[in-house]
Amino acid sequence: MTNYFSSNFKLGILGGGQLGKMLLYNTRKFDIYTCVLESSNEAPCKIACDEFHLGDLMNYDDVYNFGKQVDVLTIEIENVNVNALETLEKEGVKVYPSSKSLKIIQNKAKQKLFYVDNDLPTAPFSRFAYTSEIEEAINHGGLSFPFVWKSAQFGYDGTGVKIVKAIQDLEGLPNVECIAEKLVPFKNELAVIVARNPSGETKTFPVVEMEFHPEANQVEYVICPARIPDDVAKKAEDIALKTSQAFSHVGLLAVEMFQTQDDQILINEVAPRPHNSGHQTIEASYTSQFEQHIRAILNLPLGKTDSKAGGVMVNLVGAEGFSGDVIYENIETIMKMDGVTPHIYGKKQTRPFRKMGHVTIVNEDLGEARRIAEEVKKTIKVISK
Amino acid sequence: MTNYFSSNFKLGILGGGQLGKMLLYNTRKFDIYTCVLESSNEAPCKIACDEFHLGDLMNYDDVYNFGKQVDVLTIEIENVNVNALETLEKEGVKVYPSSKSLKIIQNKAKQKLFYVDNDLPTAPFSRFAYTSEIEEAINHGGLSFPFVWKSAQFGYDGTGVKIVKAIQDLEGLPNVECIAEKLVPFKNELAVIVARNPSGETKTFPVVEMEFHPEANQVEYVICPARIPDDVAKKAEDIALKTSQAFSHVGLLAVEMFQTQDDQILINEVAPRPHNSGHQTIEASYTSQFEQHIRAILNLPLGKTDSKAGGVMVNLVGAEGFSGDVIYENIETIMKMDGVTPHIYGKKQTRPFRKMGHVTIVNEDLGEARRIAEEVKKTIKVISK
Repeated sequence: MTNYFSSNFKLGILGGGQLGKMLLYNTRKFDIYTCVLESSNEAPCKIACDEFHLGDLMNYDDVYNFGKQVDVLTIEIENVNVNALETLEKEGVKVYPSSKSLKIIQNKAKQKLFYVDNDLPTAPFSRFAYTSEIEEAINHGGLSFPFVWKSAQFGYDGTGVKIVKAIQDLEGLPNVECIAEKLVPFKNELAVIVARNPSGETKTFPVVEMEFHPEANQVEYVICPARIPDDVAKKAEDIALKTSQAFSHVGLLAVEMFQTQDDQILINEVAPRPHNSGHQTIEASYTSQFEQHIRAILNLPLGKTDSKAGGVMVNLVGAEGFSGDVIYENIETIMKMDGVTPHIYGKKQTRPFRKMGHVTIVNEDLGEARRIAEEVKKTIKVISK
Repeated sequence: MTNYFSSNFKLGILGGGQLGKMLLYNTRKFDIYTCVLESSNEAPCKIACDEFHLGDLMNYDDVYNFGKQVDVLTIEIENVNVNALETLEKEGVKVYPSSKSLKIIQNKAKQKLFYVDNDLPTAPFSRFAYTSEIEEAINHGGLSFPFVWKSAQFGYDGTGVKIVKAIQDLEGLPNVECIAEKLVPFKNELAVIVARNPSGETKTFPVVEMEFHPEANQVEYVICPARIPDDVAKKAEDIALKTSQAFSHVGLLAVEMFQTQDDQILINEVAPRPHNSGHQTIEASYTSQFEQHIRAILNLPLGKTDSKAGGVMVNLVGAEGFSGDVIYENIETIMKMDGVTPHIYGKKQTRPFRKMGHVTIVNEDLGEARRIAEEVKKTIKVISK
């Protein structure tokens, strides 16, 4: 086994954003030499890595030339040039997650087909080469309202997803490869982060519950553990594990799921990396998701995923009506509250619903943590000067 | 109140070592702009700060010119040019800890006199301008064996301290300002870290117990909370608080104490910064000592100091008989153990008793954490290639 702690080993990270930054804290704890590729000199990862490389994550040559210099290559964002990863894998670079996983995950239609092929529960859907084909399907009775339109590629955090209740809702949507998914009424949105290392050791973090902002389609609170019956939690965990195994996934896989009205679990989508639904692990878990990702991709033993305390995460997003140089109003007031830690991402400009940071609330009593989280949410305002 | 989170505020750190590195993780969480002064380009803080400045911490001009560029100046090592700090304070830079605190703490004789002047309990001692004066004091009956010889300046981690049982033990000691302290038999060595912000808000971390290596005079285990009666813990906390107040200290003050055979508490020495006896707070506490230091010096509300779980810290020091390129033998074995996180400092060369890192063990059950800590200690070996 490679001794990562005392060799000339290099870890490469594609993407230099906030997730990368939080990942880097843990590489430094283990004294691992890191190289980051990102297209902007303003990237949060510019400091805290050993080598910062400027380049386009979607450009074959940039990714290939960067990857050739490292021993293990990972990502903090899934929109990267997968063909370059394929070549690198053939040439002996360890790429986690694999190009095979990423190819499936990058395309929502392929992702859905993968679930069906692997007998993993997901909402019924139809795939279309172009949005314009949907109308025809409706006219021929192959599709009925309401449904969820999802762009097959590059959609995240509210872009590339729309609930379609009538034909006019299709207006203005890009004419791209897409899916139309049955709108399933659900009780809860849940997520489980699974870690798996190349030796096949697997661990899951506790099931979390996500409360979404009704307008922005962004997660507002993440609650760990989810306040659901044990048998439902067990079912969600089993499905998440089965998903990770189906991908032969290495690293973290965040599996987002719906808990339906009749307590069925349906997979919504997955993310092959540290995830917003795992930020509370920094303060609440024995092992943070970031440390766990490092342990997994380096084939180290996985850390304990139990919680030390109840955790609630609040996303800090730009307030409506404010754009410009950011101010975190009342941040000092929330720092007085019990077990509250803000994480500020350092973006200089705010705009409505822009993700500017997150706040974690930990407490022995989860109900109390949730109560304080609401107070945090009401108190801090991300506005502009 | 300054809004540190969205201004052009700059924090300066004197010293670029391991403590600084762990401090920087937390400045990044709050997106605080940091400048570090250190004399070596190999410093662990070289990456993760916004600006790295090369310079000598003991040189007036280097410290002054660096300090002029920042708004708040702190330290991660106490051996810095205090005269420069005094000038900076006069010119409006906020220096925490203050030059006044540092002047007293840098000199062990002054430190001891400070305790006496402030009615703080400490072992009886005599001060000598030169070690050579001690023999005369013995001859005149002013001092008797055994006693502890301590160099007044620049002693830490076993250097500058010697137990003197007979006259020949004085041989080879440097002829410097020093103290001779009564050797007090004690049950336990304890420590309390006190945080205090400029507004006077004060919080203490739980009392910890330190087990020293018999030969190297280095801490081997730190156990949090200390396994001592509540009334003894209360006494230690009160004395630590009183010490912090006597200094009007801002930032962290780690107060090391002896618990005597008859349960008296005597102050041994203090460190005005994050301290080895607080490393377990990273994993075990609601707020780590590093986050707390940042909160304190920026006059932010202090974080909760309770523990989420029992914590034991094991120092990783170079094994006897090995010098050269370091190898962490069996590190993967300890990472399999329950709740174990290694922190590797990244020093390339090991030598006997050199501090190379630390390992934290967290567990709901402190006894179990202590048991695992012993297993960690027996398993991992810091050796050379």
